[in-house]
Amino acid sequence: MGTVFSNVNVWTPHCESTAPVDVRVEGGQIAAITSPGSAASPGDDVLDCAGMLALPGLINAHTHVAMALLRGCADDVPLHTWLEEHVWPIERMLTPDDVYWGSVLGLVEMVRAGTTQIVDMYFHVDAVGRAVRDVGLRANLSYGIVADSMDDVGRRELETAEGVVATWHGACGGRIRAAVAPHAVYSCGEDVLQAAAKLAGRYTVPIHTHLSEAEKEVDDWSNVHGVSPVATLERIGVLEVPTLAAHCVHVSEDDIERLAAHGVSVLHCPCSNAKLGNGVAPIAAMQRAGVNVALGTDGAASNNNLDLFREMRTAALLQKAIRRDANILSADAVLEMATENGARALGLATGTLAVGAPADVVVVDLECAHVQPIYDAQSALVYASHSDDVVDVMIDGAFVVREGNLMTVDEDEVRSEVKVRAGRLRDGMAHPGTAA
Amino acid sequence: MGTVFSNVNVWTPHCESTAPVDVRVEGGQIAAITSPGSAASPGDDVLDCAGMLALPGLINAHTHVAMALLRGCADDVPLHTWLEEHVWPIERMLTPDDVYWGSVLGLVEMVRAGTTQIVDMYFHVDAVGRAVRDVGLRANLSYGIVADSMDDVGRRELETAEGVVATWHGACGGRIRAAVAPHAVYSCGEDVLQAAAKLAGRYTVPIHTHLSEAEKEVDDWSNVHGVSPVATLERIGVLEVPTLAAHCVHVSEDDIERLAAHGVSVLHCPCSNAKLGNGVAPIAAMQRAGVNVALGTDGAASNNNLDLFREMRTAALLQKAIRRDANILSADAVLEMATENGARALGLATGTLAVGAPADVVVVDLECAHVQPIYDAQSALVYASHSDDVVDVMIDGAFVVREGNLMTVDEDEVRSEVKVRAGRLRDGMAHPGTAA
Repeated sequence: MGTVFSNVNVWTPHCESTAPVDVRVEGGQIAAITSPGSAASPGDDVLDCAGMLALPGLINAHTHVAMALLRGCADDVPLHTWLEEHVWPIERMLTPDDVYWGSVLGLVEMVRAGTTQIVDMYFHVDAVGRAVRDVGLRANLSYGIVADSMDDVGRRELETAEGVVATWHGACGGRIRAAVAPHAVYSCGEDVLQAAAKLAGRYTVPIHTHLSEAEKEVDDWSNVHGVSPVATLERIGVLEVPTLAAHCVHVSEDDIERLAAHGVSVLHCPCSNAKLGNGVAPIAAMQRAGVNVALGTDGAASNNNLDLFREMRTAALLQKAIRRDANILSADAVLEMATENGARALGLATGTLAVGAPADVVVVDLECAHVQPIYDAQSALVYASHSDDVVDVMIDGAFVVREGNLMTVDEDEVRSEVKVRAGRLRDGMAHPGTAA
Repeated sequence: MGTVFSNVNVWTPHCESTAPVDVRVEGGQIAAITSPGSAASPGDDVLDCAGMLALPGLINAHTHVAMALLRGCADDVPLHTWLEEHVWPIERMLTPDDVYWGSVLGLVEMVRAGTTQIVDMYFHVDAVGRAVRDVGLRANLSYGIVADSMDDVGRRELETAEGVVATWHGACGGRIRAAVAPHAVYSCGEDVLQAAAKLAGRYTVPIHTHLSEAEKEVDDWSNVHGVSPVATLERIGVLEVPTLAAHCVHVSEDDIERLAAHGVSVLHCPCSNAKLGNGVAPIAAMQRAGVNVALGTDGAASNNNLDLFREMRTAALLQKAIRRDANILSADAVLEMATENGARALGLATGTLAVGAPADVVVVDLECAHVQPIYDAQSALVYASHSDDVVDVMIDGAFVVREGNLMTVDEDEVRSEVKVRAGRLRDGMAHPGTAA
């Protein structure tokens, strides 16, 4: 028995349907794409998708999903104030259960918004993994390693990182995978970065790190070390391992050449980079150099949504605004960033709606007043559609959202858990040292 | 008999409620704001607004609402290509009925997104006015004058503009007002601009114009005339009349001083300016100089939404990104742009939820996964809430949206009219000269 999205328009990388089709799913894969009314076999579950558009599940290539619990805790302040005076003090208060419920909240927001797959970095990763398992997304999980050197702290950090890979890589029938995540060059010693790369190589998983996010961070590093953070990672051999590098806002032409030469995937987070005052990454130059650029939201504490529809639109607008060029980063290019480029970064076959691909399918209603009329489907998706227009979300062949209803967790319970925990954190911020 | 928004949190300029209140409306005005449960009189219509937030209706200070019919007709192209090769050829095909249905579509999108008032410039303005009357918003309407000089064409253009003021200023019980709208310095001769200012003075209505939108437009003008477009408007006396100037992306410090000295309100359209590759207006400098800056979407052909929630968020992100300063344009400041600054530009008492103010009230659900938890209400509204979270919209004391249901027009009819008309325009684009 299969599922048929019937009479649906399709957008998939490099191929926009000019007429509606039937998309049939069976055994967790796209089984057939045929003319309308022709795909259903007896016993199939058939959804009438007239007036709707199917696209591959969106891939959020860089996030800290549990930080949904910190959404709006500190706005309109720069990166270092935000981290040191707000985020880190709150994070020290987080229990594994806080991380679980924060993750569930963020995953619910994302799946309702058509995101089927995430690349995450955080701590209490077992709690993140349980949340991913329960809500039903695909994920690449990692523990953010922070250590000056491979002393006791460094060894313990690497052990924790290895534990995440050992536990979660391949879990939930392969829906969950893992990476090794040294937090950044400025928060990890050289030997720690090298040990992380070795660990990643041993498990054949990627490195996931923050790279060249703030101007001051890059300037300070370059003043002390004489070379850029990108050049440092190259010199010490980290880029020999498949690497996912979040941000890359402040990278030179030489840095971009290095990223391209080593096949590094850049995880572009335009809203977070803008909101923290870090600027706009040179995406057009990266794409000209052949760098694979995927799209991420970063955490909700610096975004403040986990919404790839908003991220796609803002990605395009920021590039056009800063380069004063309306042609840069077309709707098609930005949709590819949010789908196939994310899959390419992870070496997975998701991010497309081709026959044989994993069945991660998102169905969007195009009939709303804010989308009509439609002259061009990809323009409608990027510039006009809202995440709230998502009607159905299938991941690995199973519905996680159907006709707007979440199928996997109880949203009332999520809300109630989140409110209690946020209240405790708020009290803890007001009276440091008193929160559990 | 009145209406009570009961147990609701309130955001209004310069005053965020720290606890829920009752907001009572009677006779088209805010009659009382009191403690929860205390406001209702016998016979009142009482809405339970627990978990929701009320704010003054949002004011879209610059739009061409009928262009919703052209949404997505041409994307990822620069301003002059967009205008000359796409928009103008399509606009030449528009009938008054097209303008009516395009306007209804745009107004439905806007009111569902919490916009209660618009400042519009277009042609076939009687059709726009009928749409505003039918959907139920407040509006300032104007005819976009284009004429090289006060010859036969110029006189006819001014007559049309005067007809709009005579017909619509004060219409629908004062809900509709008017302006005189010379399109721009580059599309109107000096004598036309002066005649427009004189006409505006005679009727005591503002001038509404486009000003310094594209870099090339300003450079070309300055090369020929030796002074900027802003300086030109000052020199020929136009700025003696209250003036609403859309865009002002490419303005010098001197220009900004001139705008401030003459009390010109700038209508900031960040998404359209970005999408057309025009850049980012220097809002922080304008605000430091004391210029009143209101927020607009521009038309849906260059946005492609008419959504002040998206516009508020993008306004803040663009300023922070381009100035690399996270402190610039806080959530509060951007909410003021979308409410009180719009009202100030128009000299109206809307844009606030004070006792005695006109009853333009928007109620937003804050319980959604993408908004929770709430540490700060204005941050939630600007950075996390979606326009789809709007539940109730009251304009001039009457519900236009209630519990998500549009009360004034039939959306199925709107959709069907829009599809037929867009189809005809699409055919006309493919086969110029054949469309009626």
